[in-house]
Amino acid sequence: MSITIKGLARELNLSVSTISKALTDSHEISSETKQRVLELARKLNYKPNPYASSLRRRRSKTIAVVLPAIADSFFSLAINGIEAAASDKDYHVLIYLTHESFAKEEAMLDDFQHGRVDGILISVSRETAQSKHIQDVMNNGIPVVFFDRIIEEIATTKVTTNDFESSYQATSHLIQQGCKRLCYLGISKDLSISNTRMEGYKKALTDNGLPVEESNILYCTNEDEADFQLIKKTLKGKKRPDGIVASVEKLTTPVYVACEELGLSIPDDVKVLSFSNLYTAPILNPALTTVTQPAFEMGQKAAEILLKCLGKKNSKLDNESIVIPSSLTIRASTL
Amino acid sequence: MSITIKGLARELNLSVSTISKALTDSHEISSETKQRVLELARKLNYKPNPYASSLRRRRSKTIAVVLPAIADSFFSLAINGIEAAASDKDYHVLIYLTHESFAKEEAMLDDFQHGRVDGILISVSRETAQSKHIQDVMNNGIPVVFFDRIIEEIATTKVTTNDFESSYQATSHLIQQGCKRLCYLGISKDLSISNTRMEGYKKALTDNGLPVEESNILYCTNEDEADFQLIKKTLKGKKRPDGIVASVEKLTTPVYVACEELGLSIPDDVKVLSFSNLYTAPILNPALTTVTQPAFEMGQKAAEILLKCLGKKNSKLDNESIVIPSSLTIRASTL
Repeated sequence: MSITIKGLARELNLSVSTISKALTDSHEISSETKQRVLELARKLNYKPNPYASSLRRRRSKTIAVVLPAIADSFFSLAINGIEAAASDKDYHVLIYLTHESFAKEEAMLDDFQHGRVDGILISVSRETAQSKHIQDVMNNGIPVVFFDRIIEEIATTKVTTNDFESSYQATSHLIQQGCKRLCYLGISKDLSISNTRMEGYKKALTDNGLPVEESNILYCTNEDEADFQLIKKTLKGKKRPDGIVASVEKLTTPVYVACEELGLSIPDDVKVLSFSNLYTAPILNPALTTVTQPAFEMGQKAAEILLKCLGKKNSKLDNESIVIPSSLTIRASTL
Repeated sequence: MSITIKGLARELNLSVSTISKALTDSHEISSETKQRVLELARKLNYKPNPYASSLRRRRSKTIAVVLPAIADSFFSLAINGIEAAASDKDYHVLIYLTHESFAKEEAMLDDFQHGRVDGILISVSRETAQSKHIQDVMNNGIPVVFFDRIIEEIATTKVTTNDFESSYQATSHLIQQGCKRLCYLGISKDLSISNTRMEGYKKALTDNGLPVEESNILYCTNEDEADFQLIKKTLKGKKRPDGIVASVEKLTTPVYVACEELGLSIPDDVKVLSFSNLYTAPILNPALTTVTQPAFEMGQKAAEILLKCLGKKNSKLDNESIVIPSSLTIRASTL
């Protein structure tokens, strides 16, 4: 057991308030007294009770990271980046998973209004089509920084990657490789990144004289089996696509399995690429072409901005977008 | 903004202490008053400040999960299981990453001694060779449950999988497939699971009349490039292994890449299997045989046990091992 403030006060024959002020380096306390207090505190292994000091300062030294999922290499790498920035500044990171549920996301943000965390990093769920829950928490003085999955109209800092350009570039690559019927696999009509990536795909088609057909734009659900059946049905159809742009990595496995079951060769019959940070991409059968997102850097940057804001009194977050570019890594699945 | 206890007291012309007691259902307060307080609290959207109530009850309604890494499908699935159990009981989950560093793990556990969390779930780092930091936090009244990577000598509940048996079964499978020189890829001489899996491997060799050669037991580091070079060197050697048992999934990619660079065929020249929950295992080139661990179930079970203990006064954790079996999924990499 370590000693409390009361214990220090007793040992030094000083008031609790004097000890407390000395420990927080108050100008009301002489440097001589401060030194006495600090020496004993060190000697007796004094550690502040984080809840007591949170209550006093209304600070928990904790940031929340609200994410749709963790079993995704983008988010797990982003968390590593966030964690790296937070541990530099001695902050704790609370990770909250929405599992793509708007109701859960709303309940979490509601809970944050009551002092549990100092600031929030969020990548919204695929169901999130409104922003009141986020605006409310910001109005309550808790800063929010978006990363990856943003809500455009909220005035705060957003860290994203160049989704439009990288999707345009990836789709153009498929067209250069000879694809004529390109299918886009999205995950939500409401989600900013899913739409931005779709716009990049559409623009590449148009710029290359190919028609945009709504029947080639598919929205997957959050249910693995339903996604698999939808993909398989599309690949069995008369107007079978000869190229697939998957907007999230978890759609890669059902595409590969469906092709195998249908006897379709990747890349001969269908060329496939995915937005993905999968470290197994090079050893898939065949190796997968990926739009590789700067996941670690995005998480780290978002956390640094939030922590900088928390470190200054009355600091406000700028309404700005910070874009860290992705890169296209071409492998056998599109050659 | 929601209302505070003070605000409720003002509105109802009652003391702060009466409001507080009414809200916590104290027997000192009449049921009539309780009803008035609760009605207004609901109407004005009163939410307790979690730090204030934590301080009073010395409870944070938060559990910590201490893990070596998150970019690993075992841990990300285990977190989902932990999170499922915690959200059932309205607990928050704080995730702490040690990045396989004992020093970080020690600092985290030291920090927990001062009230931030009510209980701890831990899977120790590969460097962790001693247990004082965990014993200290337990002596301070904070219950600890181990999952996956345990420390045997600490008297508490441990949730593991049948590492010895599943490694024995996996190694035996390789021997049945004709392998004579089997290499075991471990990650630490100190880590319980790494050693238990190695013992299963050794026993399978001995039971099948094959020699145990120390030169076939390799310890990888936490550095991707060094691991890759070590694996490549082994696969280039005169006594090249014809079978590989990888004890963690992140060693799969370097094994596959090394084989490709050396022109070795999996499974014809080298058969490969890994302890892994990779959802891309079926679409690797070739599809990977895995010892599939019950990651979600292990996380969920460990959290349920911890939360049950936290839910009862003076409850103590049994010194017991709960074993949830893994399964061997045979695919093309060993056929």
